[in-house]
Amino acid sequence: MMEKGLLVVISGPSGAGKGTVYQKVIERTGMMRSVSVTTRKPRPGEIDGVNYFFKTEEQYQQMIAAGEFLETAEVYKNYYGTPKAPVYENLDKGNDVLFEVDVHGARSIKKQYPEAITVFLMTPDFETLSERLRGRGTESEESLKTRLGAAKRELGKYEMFDYIVFNDTVEQAVEDVTDIIRAEKRRIKNNLSVIKKLLEQ
Amino acid sequence: MMEKGLLVVISGPSGAGKGTVYQKVIERTGMMRSVSVTTRKPRPGEIDGVNYFFKTEEQYQQMIAAGEFLETAEVYKNYYGTPKAPVYENLDKGNDVLFEVDVHGARSIKKQYPEAITVFLMTPDFETLSERLRGRGTESEESLKTRLGAAKRELGKYEMFDYIVFNDTVEQAVEDVTDIIRAEKRRIKNNLSVIKKLLEQ
Repeated sequence: MMEKGLLVVISGPSGAGKGTVYQKVIERTGMMRSVSVTTRKPRPGEIDGVNYFFKTEEQYQQMIAAGEFLETAEVYKNYYGTPKAPVYENLDKGNDVLFEVDVHGARSIKKQYPEAITVFLMTPDFETLSERLRGRGTESEESLKTRLGAAKRELGKYEMFDYIVFNDTVEQAVEDVTDIIRAEKRRIKNNLSVIKKLLEQ
Repeated sequence: MMEKGLLVVISGPSGAGKGTVYQKVIERTGMMRSVSVTTRKPRPGEIDGVNYFFKTEEQYQQMIAAGEFLETAEVYKNYYGTPKAPVYENLDKGNDVLFEVDVHGARSIKKQYPEAITVFLMTPDFETLSERLRGRGTESEESLKTRLGAAKRELGKYEMFDYIVFNDTVEQAVEDVTDIIRAEKRRIKNNLSVIKKLLEQ
């Protein structure tokens, strides 16, 4: 018997810094990243099975119908989704897997895999979120408003999350997420095989 | 509105190193320690309200009858107990309080204060526990057997604990306990007032 790996989800509003924190937590912990399935065409240099699993829309729809996704979303006419099989294989091998998904995706993952550990990443306040989105230089005032409204609705769903981390500095946010992962490794339910082995002595 | 402090309990079998880990976690985190009530006579230099609250047996029995203890135990004809009032006052002020108690005490605290975070501190295996107890030089072979039997029964109660930390090196065990405390601070339920304030913006 062996402990299963942890499935950890970093989520939160657009502009909170999910991508950067995710990348640094992966580097620091050596956790597995999940490879998404997509219907978009490969870009030069992208390798099937490494960057994405590239599928036709027909194949993708078959996978949806067969319930093969932990979460799936449509972005600008392309589909992106997380296939269950490779994730569950990793968890069964004892590997921890880290996800970075939007709040919709986090909800879908938690629904299908309730043991998932969900972290809501947020800026210290909405002004900071607004500044960061504005700093991208790609947001119109209207889309900024839309994003801020969405962020508030997403934070309003805090009850579906286990933890909240405020991304004041990236360094601190990465520290907080790795603390959470290390603490979860110490949960009784994640040590049952060790405990039972000790009790058999 | 303000977040309540955390009540964290370090427990585990005799010989696992609870006292040392407790002391170092207090030093590192600046958490409050709870002051126990006792019926034993003050030793030279001990100050009432600092080292212990010193009470007569009659006063102590009245406190038990009034339900004023989080946990109480009799050790060599003296009583030792943790009074609720000062602990709850600290938690209400947002201060985190750390306890070091035996498994019996941990159960009593968890029963009366279910939000308590309970950590079972254990040696990596029972051989190590045996060596450490033997190393004290104060245990007869018989009392050693009794203690090992008790340790096994205590580990058997793992389901009442939230976390397990293996005290392989003190440094690692202290790190694990502080990780757990920092992670718990990031739980959604310990950030409700901040979240609600953000949502009111």
